[in-house]
Amino acid sequence: MRQLDAMVSPRFSQPATYARLPYNRDLSGVRAAFVGVPFDDATSFRPGARFGPVGIREGSRLLRPYNMFLGVYPFEKLNACDYGDVDVVPGFVEDTMSRIEGVIREVGGKCTPFIAGGDHSITLPVLRALSGIHGRLNLVHFDSHFDFWDNYWGKRYTHGTWLRRALEEGLVNKVIQVGIRGSVYSHTDVEDSAKLGTVFYTAPQVKRDAGGVLSAINGLSGKTYVSVDIDCVDPAYAPGTGTPEVGGLTSLELIELLRGFRVDMVGFDVVEVSPPYDHAELTSMLAANLIYEAMSVVALK
Amino acid sequence: MRQLDAMVSPRFSQPATYARLPYNRDLSGVRAAFVGVPFDDATSFRPGARFGPVGIREGSRLLRPYNMFLGVYPFEKLNACDYGDVDVVPGFVEDTMSRIEGVIREVGGKCTPFIAGGDHSITLPVLRALSGIHGRLNLVHFDSHFDFWDNYWGKRYTHGTWLRRALEEGLVNKVIQVGIRGSVYSHTDVEDSAKLGTVFYTAPQVKRDAGGVLSAINGLSGKTYVSVDIDCVDPAYAPGTGTPEVGGLTSLELIELLRGFRVDMVGFDVVEVSPPYDHAELTSMLAANLIYEAMSVVALK
Amino acid sequence: MRQLDAMVSPRFSQPATYARLPYNRDLSGVRAAFVGVPFDDATSFRPGARFGPVGIREGSRLLRPYNMFLGVYPFEKLNACDYGDVDVVPGFVEDTMSRIEGVIREVGGKCTPFIAGGDHSITLPVLRALSGIHGRLNLVHFDSHFDFWDNYWGKRYTHGTWLRRALEEGLVNKVIQVGIRGSVYSHTDVEDSAKLGTVFYTAPQVKRDAGGVLSAINGLSGKTYVSVDIDCVDPAYAPGTGTPEVGGLTSLELIELLRGFRVDMVGFDVVEVSPPYDHAELTSMLAANLIYEAMSVVALK
Amino acid sequence: MRQLDAMVSPRFSQPATYARLPYNRDLSGVRAAFVGVPFDDATSFRPGARFGPVGIREGSRLLRPYNMFLGVYPFEKLNACDYGDVDVVPGFVEDTMSRIEGVIREVGGKCTPFIAGGDHSITLPVLRALSGIHGRLNLVHFDSHFDFWDNYWGKRYTHGTWLRRALEEGLVNKVIQVGIRGSVYSHTDVEDSAKLGTVFYTAPQVKRDAGGVLSAINGLSGKTYVSVDIDCVDPAYAPGTGTPEVGGLTSLELIELLRGFRVDMVGFDVVEVSPPYDHAELTSMLAANLIYEAMSVVALK
Amino acid sequence: MRQLDAMVSPRFSQPATYARLPYNRDLSGVRAAFVGVPFDDATSFRPGARFGPVGIREGSRLLRPYNMFLGVYPFEKLNACDYGDVDVVPGFVEDTMSRIEGVIREVGGKCTPFIAGGDHSITLPVLRALSGIHGRLNLVHFDSHFDFWDNYWGKRYTHGTWLRRALEEGLVNKVIQVGIRGSVYSHTDVEDSAKLGTVFYTAPQVKRDAGGVLSAINGLSGKTYVSVDIDCVDPAYAPGTGTPEVGGLTSLELIELLRGFRVDMVGFDVVEVSPPYDHAELTSMLAANLIYEAMSVVALK
Amino acid sequence: MRQLDAMVSPRFSQPATYARLPYNRDLSGVRAAFVGVPFDDATSFRPGARFGPVGIREGSRLLRPYNMFLGVYPFEKLNACDYGDVDVVPGFVEDTMSRIEGVIREVGGKCTPFIAGGDHSITLPVLRALSGIHGRLNLVHFDSHFDFWDNYWGKRYTHGTWLRRALEEGLVNKVIQVGIRGSVYSHTDVEDSAKLGTVFYTAPQVKRDAGGVLSAINGLSGKTYVSVDIDCVDPAYAPGTGTPEVGGLTSLELIELLRGFRVDMVGFDVVEVSPPYDHAELTSMLAANLIYEAMSVVALK
Repeated sequence: MRQLDAMVSPRFSQPATYARLPYNRDLSGVRAAFVGVPFDDATSFRPGARFGPVGIREGSRLLRPYNMFLGVYPFEKLNACDYGDVDVVPGFVEDTMSRIEGVIREVGGKCTPFIAGGDHSITLPVLRALSGIHGRLNLVHFDSHFDFWDNYWGKRYTHGTWLRRALEEGLVNKVIQVGIRGSVYSHTDVEDSAKLGTVFYTAPQVKRDAGGVLSAINGLSGKTYVSVDIDCVDPAYAPGTGTPEVGGLTSLELIELLRGFRVDMVGFDVVEVSPPYDHAELTSMLAANLIYEAMSVVALK
Repeated sequence: MRQLDAMVSPRFSQPATYARLPYNRDLSGVRAAFVGVPFDDATSFRPGARFGPVGIREGSRLLRPYNMFLGVYPFEKLNACDYGDVDVVPGFVEDTMSRIEGVIREVGGKCTPFIAGGDHSITLPVLRALSGIHGRLNLVHFDSHFDFWDNYWGKRYTHGTWLRRALEEGLVNKVIQVGIRGSVYSHTDVEDSAKLGTVFYTAPQVKRDAGGVLSAINGLSGKTYVSVDIDCVDPAYAPGTGTPEVGGLTSLELIELLRGFRVDMVGFDVVEVSPPYDHAELTSMLAANLIYEAMSVVALK
Repeated sequence: MRQLDAMVSPRFSQPATYARLPYNRDLSGVRAAFVGVPFDDATSFRPGARFGPVGIREGSRLLRPYNMFLGVYPFEKLNACDYGDVDVVPGFVEDTMSRIEGVIREVGGKCTPFIAGGDHSITLPVLRALSGIHGRLNLVHFDSHFDFWDNYWGKRYTHGTWLRRALEEGLVNKVIQVGIRGSVYSHTDVEDSAKLGTVFYTAPQVKRDAGGVLSAINGLSGKTYVSVDIDCVDPAYAPGTGTPEVGGLTSLELIELLRGFRVDMVGFDVVEVSPPYDHAELTSMLAANLIYEAMSVVALK
Repeated sequence: MRQLDAMVSPRFSQPATYARLPYNRDLSGVRAAFVGVPFDDATSFRPGARFGPVGIREGSRLLRPYNMFLGVYPFEKLNACDYGDVDVVPGFVEDTMSRIEGVIREVGGKCTPFIAGGDHSITLPVLRALSGIHGRLNLVHFDSHFDFWDNYWGKRYTHGTWLRRALEEGLVNKVIQVGIRGSVYSHTDVEDSAKLGTVFYTAPQVKRDAGGVLSAINGLSGKTYVSVDIDCVDPAYAPGTGTPEVGGLTSLELIELLRGFRVDMVGFDVVEVSPPYDHAELTSMLAANLIYEAMSVVALK
Repeated sequence: MRQLDAMVSPRFSQPATYARLPYNRDLSGVRAAFVGVPFDDATSFRPGARFGPVGIREGSRLLRPYNMFLGVYPFEKLNACDYGDVDVVPGFVEDTMSRIEGVIREVGGKCTPFIAGGDHSITLPVLRALSGIHGRLNLVHFDSHFDFWDNYWGKRYTHGTWLRRALEEGLVNKVIQVGIRGSVYSHTDVEDSAKLGTVFYTAPQVKRDAGGVLSAINGLSGKTYVSVDIDCVDPAYAPGTGTPEVGGLTSLELIELLRGFRVDMVGFDVVEVSPPYDHAELTSMLAANLIYEAMSVVALK
Repeated sequence: MRQLDAMVSPRFSQPATYARLPYNRDLSGVRAAFVGVPFDDATSFRPGARFGPVGIREGSRLLRPYNMFLGVYPFEKLNACDYGDVDVVPGFVEDTMSRIEGVIREVGGKCTPFIAGGDHSITLPVLRALSGIHGRLNLVHFDSHFDFWDNYWGKRYTHGTWLRRALEEGLVNKVIQVGIRGSVYSHTDVEDSAKLGTVFYTAPQVKRDAGGVLSAINGLSGKTYVSVDIDCVDPAYAPGTGTPEVGGLTSLELIELLRGFRVDMVGFDVVEVSPPYDHAELTSMLAANLIYEAMSVVALK
């Protein structure tokens, strides 16, 4: 699949698909598909992530074919396309999760899915689908929050509880969390991390020793899923998000980590991009680039 | 209850309550209470109405004691207060509806509730509560949309179906809809209005004969509920909303209609105010003023 | 062609085409095509209209199938589609004009084009193409400006001179201008109108006698092109534009005029929508609705 | 004095002066001068009007030489210039007032001043200066507020008390207020109007009988000052202001009133334009046009 | 005092107080009180800091009970509350200063005040009050500006002169300034620092040796006041401020410095937060977090 | 030439010139002139840089006389002024280039020009003019893009091809590019750099070894031109630009590099500042400061 040629159709023209790739549901020969999941009713503060997929498509108009930092043509190498969005059921998290699981089971069976959320609740059905295909997965989770709380308002499926569900359901194996910061609910949160067997690196730790974090990640063996909550980045770089925490990573710190990945990545998502709170498409553009870098890493394999 | 005195504490100071009235849950002696319902997970397009109550509170800082157009001191006459918000369950419309019904049953039993949404789904539990207290009610419904569709995505409780539910449940008696416009789903929508027994006035009809519309409204006998979807007003006047339709009423047209109401109003809401899409608090300020005018009408009785 | 079903794919999902119609370049059986022309280098003040087509597509997500004011299903009746954008040459007005003329000659030979600009210079090549097909056309021109100046900075092809070129080239026959206002260059502008044989109605005249304006328009006999500069509407209703003039029409005034059209419309454009200056998609939504109303008028024939 | 020629220097170029007129402090031969008064420390709610003069200058770039509605070239006829701003003392209203009075006494002795505020407190020293030159003046006051309260927080010089001071000091004779609306402090406000001898027309009254209001204004005999608080216009048309009141005039209603003025205007101001709350320069552009229309009226004499 | 429970009342609901703590003027048993000072008439450029306290309250909705970086529950440990705002006198800096001094004398006698400005002039009366209680204080002053100029426009009390006044009045002892940068008035500014006995670290110095800066600060013995002008942080992180200077600290650099404080802190302020210039509450959220970290440091003692 | 005194005329007052310096076309005795070039029709994505010069003027109001980091009074030392803008021809890049070349030949013959764009195409005619005066120049080029592509849409003069033209025309000698990042068109881009004889440092390289980059720059011998595309800085610091690339430099990193320059600078530009996409003047303020630092470097000589 080829991007629209910017020398023929200028970048600001034609309907938006991810990276101006074809909008296409036939995945034969495709090795990477962009999939949107426009659901945000499991969020606890600002909504708007339902507009994440369309925002990220608009924010991807500047992406060009060659990644000179990794020496690869990701779209060409992976024959990538835009699969379109999952048909969610607004306001109904469990119905939506089963729709997501269905689509990702299909897409993930044919190629590597690169998913644009939506709030973070969408990662649970993605993990259900992909672990169904690949078996239990490692998880690299960029976020400012732990997301392993038990429930919110008595409800088990939210953007802050998906990781505990994934652990309970045996979908994930080793979990590394990167970018943690901000105030938390209780001193037991840190203890819970140990109990749950997850490993976390705070934002200050990443700043002090990015190499160490990357070594830990690249030490994961086996199939690995990567989930990026855009709020792992500082709100100066990503204002368009639902539960921002000050004091985060820069966009370059995150990109350089991603570029260093040598894990066996079977899926990737970037979630919690909320265009109504964005400015000048900063956050959408960053998310579009993160998917580009992740595709590049997969293309390198 | 008294507003904070702007000659002592300037208008931009102190935490925001509606009209700078006391935040108070003891309703003894109170005849009017502002109640927030910050729920927006039953919306079909743009979210954000969960921030309606806090937005409307901030947008109410300029309200002064005397309504010279109606010759009344609404807050003093009604001994009004800010009751705070209903504790909603984000992402779960049915749980939230029962919370709303519970609070409004309590508040509505003691005084007239003036409700700030939230998306329009919240009006259904309000009608359940108030019809439980007062019996079947007349409904004056300002909106650009009919809101009497049967379901969205197979779901019966959304911001576009509440009115059909209210009719099915026998909560409302006569229904007058004001401000209807925009494209619709089918020619059967108009027929359905006749079948359901509702009467509607389009935005152009209101502009041509506001007096006639007001006569029809004031011809209603018996207890009446008034629900204002802020999108009945043109998005030039109310950009901060979820499903805007161009070609609407001006804010003054709506205000003058409201000031002319001589119905027996037992409750009032203004819904679909979405601050993330607002500019300079235009929409929040309009909503705050609509509640002020509605309180004034009740105070006149 | 059918719109994406909002009851299956919610309105905020899937890549944007006009009214969620299919993106399609095969016009067999098609009677109406949306065509974007993302060019803004012939503008004299604020740019940004190059983002008009993508903005209008995003702003068209709420359009539903049935126009109850005209009693017609425009998309179904016209079997409408989104043809995509003309491949313009940024920064080069004459190259771009020949690209536009080529595309519109093709599209206009098969169906009625509904065009989204771009700045107003694009109307000249559209008129060249359509008069080539249909012969000399009547022109109904909504604008706050005359647009018949001779040149800007010695250049003959700009967004303020296209109409004089169209008159000189014999593309148009009778010209009616609606919405004129604001300061002008010289008292000779009014005299020039008489010399050029155009008729104009100022914004205040429209407000005082919309019926008279509509009669004049419907008195045109023969094939007619309709061009709407969004700045004919007041900037309160359409802030996202390049050369706003205060004191304009309301959106409803314009919509009601359009709905009254009974001319033989062979093409329609809405130009000068500049999303970088828009707020909450007000202007884009208005433009999307104007195209909808124009399609409805054509569908009525 | 001549505007910069837009056919030589495009409208978006060169440093901004009002209407691109020369920045000039030598008033010989000048009959109209734009004067900025960037003071906003006497405001009771939102500040920002200190940026009014620079905002209005930027918003005046589209003004062209000829007013076709009045048939006059205002800048040429009045040999108009931009005098620059009064050097205010931020945070100190009384020092600032004496600076304003000094400048306006000088400017007003040589030509008609057209003043851009600043908050409404600045009108008091202007009236002191101009009544010193011309004797007691009539005042036409466009506003949504009465502005004749006695004090705020015990302070006598604020944007809500200047009119009472002007009356007490005998600076004004007949006062006509236009556009009054919104909630007020007390029923005595209306009584006070009668006691103070002022006449007022509410926004709804203007909408119902603009001709009657204009007759009353044109019935004033003797030298007259015109002060326009931009909040007389609805916030949909003028969001960039400090104490907005919904339900106001449209910009065209105000412009048409102004165009009908046949009073002996010796000075004009537009105040309370607050660019930080504006969008796409809507409010600044409106203010720039109001000064243009006022200059045109004076030029007609 | 307890925060509203986010598992009962979602974060976006209920009127805003700082960190959703009780609004309470009875300080018995309270060890930390949030106090707003909404005054901005002593500013020399952009106003808007009068909306700082309400902005910071809204921006504090995400704060959770436990600071895992310092291992402390600040609100619980300090039994913290929101005291509300000082009743300022808009436009009158000296009256306002005496009001501030009065309130802080009372609050500071009972607990540690955590103050949200307002412009930086408010720190002078705070120092008067607290030095009255505790004796001469050390001052740690984060800012991009020196703020020790003698006067502005001949006025001695402004947001750029408060520090000189504090030195002249003998309120402060050792002064350490952190984050200084940008252009200055004169080479004597640096000399003045030496004469006045203050020590300063520029933004580049902080970036090169944060540890050294922290050592200097923690070397202060005796009671210490900490004042944070939000413009010490780069405007990318804090756009909502009055006199931004590019090239500043990141939010994490400031937070990590604060977390390292082991001084005897008797009061804290964050000033110059101007919500009208903010985007997506970035600046307000940062300010809310700075107060949280400062409370944590005090709670550790 | 002297800046307007902020202690007499507050910073927010009077028409804007660069750094409030005199607007002046007589260059006798002047050693540095600010020149605006408001052209943006050679851009490939977002327009708006035509408003760069007026934006940068407004963003320069806070600049003060003394640069304490370099120990110099740049404006006084260079007797600097604001020359105004080049009269461009909107929509016509070649006409505009000859206008630019003419003005810069004149200005550059008398003093050092400090140029505010406009899009990057404007640097080509500037280099033509200055190399005509000084002979072949070294070029230090800050950018996220190479800008040495051959053509866009078959057109040779665009904001992405100016550098190839400059090399072909023999205008430049050694070229050092700083800040390169983002996706590119082809692996041949890197090879082309070698063929063309340019040297580049990516953004990550700058972050890892700013000293090395500076050494390379200061190793240039002979007259040198410095061109800064504002997008070399991360969009968090400079959102107001046309083709943003995430993962860039911080503003301080760029400023510190500039302060370290010891080259023989004969001209400087900052381009691609697009105010319609800016927030709170962040980008304009940064650009204004970059010119200030560049003037300081020249003043040091």
